[in-house]
Amino acid sequence: MERSHSAQLENLRSKIANMGSYAQKALGLVLQALVEKRLDLFDEVFEIEKKINEWHKQLDEEAVEYLAANGPVARDLRAVVSLVKINTDLERMGDQCVNMAYIGKDSLKKNLDLNIPAVRTMFSIVQEMIEKSLESFIKHDSQIAQKVLMMDDEVDDLKKKVQSDMILEMKKSSEFVDRGLSLILIARNLERFGDHATNICEDVIYTEAGQDVRHGGFV
Amino acid sequence: MERSHSAQLENLRSKIANMGSYAQKALGLVLQALVEKRLDLFDEVFEIEKKINEWHKQLDEEAVEYLAANGPVARDLRAVVSLVKINTDLERMGDQCVNMAYIGKDSLKKNLDLNIPAVRTMFSIVQEMIEKSLESFIKHDSQIAQKVLMMDDEVDDLKKKVQSDMILEMKKSSEFVDRGLSLILIARNLERFGDHATNICEDVIYTEAGQDVRHGGFV
Repeated sequence: MERSHSAQLENLRSKIANMGSYAQKALGLVLQALVEKRLDLFDEVFEIEKKINEWHKQLDEEAVEYLAANGPVARDLRAVVSLVKINTDLERMGDQCVNMAYIGKDSLKKNLDLNIPAVRTMFSIVQEMIEKSLESFIKHDSQIAQKVLMMDDEVDDLKKKVQSDMILEMKKSSEFVDRGLSLILIARNLERFGDHATNICEDVIYTEAGQDVRHGGFV
Repeated sequence: MERSHSAQLENLRSKIANMGSYAQKALGLVLQALVEKRLDLFDEVFEIEKKINEWHKQLDEEAVEYLAANGPVARDLRAVVSLVKINTDLERMGDQCVNMAYIGKDSLKKNLDLNIPAVRTMFSIVQEMIEKSLESFIKHDSQIAQKVLMMDDEVDDLKKKVQSDMILEMKKSSEFVDRGLSLILIARNLERFGDHATNICEDVIYTEAGQDVRHGGFV
């Protein structure tokens, strides 16, 4: 739990945490828009994603400046390399939210109800994943990160369930095709959002413990 | 076109280029398997992806070692930060190929024909994108990279076309649901594969020209 000694690195970290809170907010807005059938909230998602894209460029630049100025080694070096990767993951989370906002907007216009239990459960789990991944990052806590990694399978299973349920529905009647496809695509975007939360946690574990747990490595 | 002066960095670059050639090979195998209806080729894709995942971890580690040992600045620093990102893009390309291999395997078993003109064209363009992105990386050539960026819109348009065509087919008859969904998902994976080729080119431009062209920046 030892913190970094560099104020510049801490400053970068807090900017990444802030960007993460916006990715989290975008995800919440997508869910709220789908549940409350509010088209206006999707536009907020688009606005947030623009901000995230700006920060993405800016924080990469700051990370490179930090490396050039300080030539860090050991834990601080791992921390800044992880920051660059987490930055990319957060930017992709913004992309997933925008994808879902497009699908959601189109579906609301067609008066399709995307608010089904399995997808609601997926949203809940993925929201917990982003929340905990940011907490593990902020608190330098590998144990919290480890817990998030274990949530990923449940999201995968739910995605498969949504997909097979919707295929059955779509086969029953052509009127379910649009809704079924929209739900399948929302589920796939949620799964990928969860994957990015997992990536963040793997980077937290790498930074704090110096161990690479990706692709089936263990701590 | 000035080359890096560090033999260690050149060594890392050639390993990334080699990993890229495997991502390219995996994409070619997916197409060949779909066209020739050969289930065995999908297994080759799974094997290649395992190798790519191993290299992904190993090359990240080598990049961090390089940073720690050399504390590079300016172009060499940009080059190594880009390597870390390109490494992630190549690993994701492996993921896309595995996704397509699962979909393809399932479809072949159900005797579905996924070999339609729009998807064939998508494969051709995306194959050119990965080829040119690796060429731009190997040759330090921003101009080739710039050309790849312009190919992305065509892939997006084709993905939309596949999606709308397949929705129509699926609505016509329930027997088209499995095939339509498989083609939509293949098209989406190809589009994402193309996105990663685009990311690589943006990193080449950033390394060579020092300019960040992501999110609508210009050179």
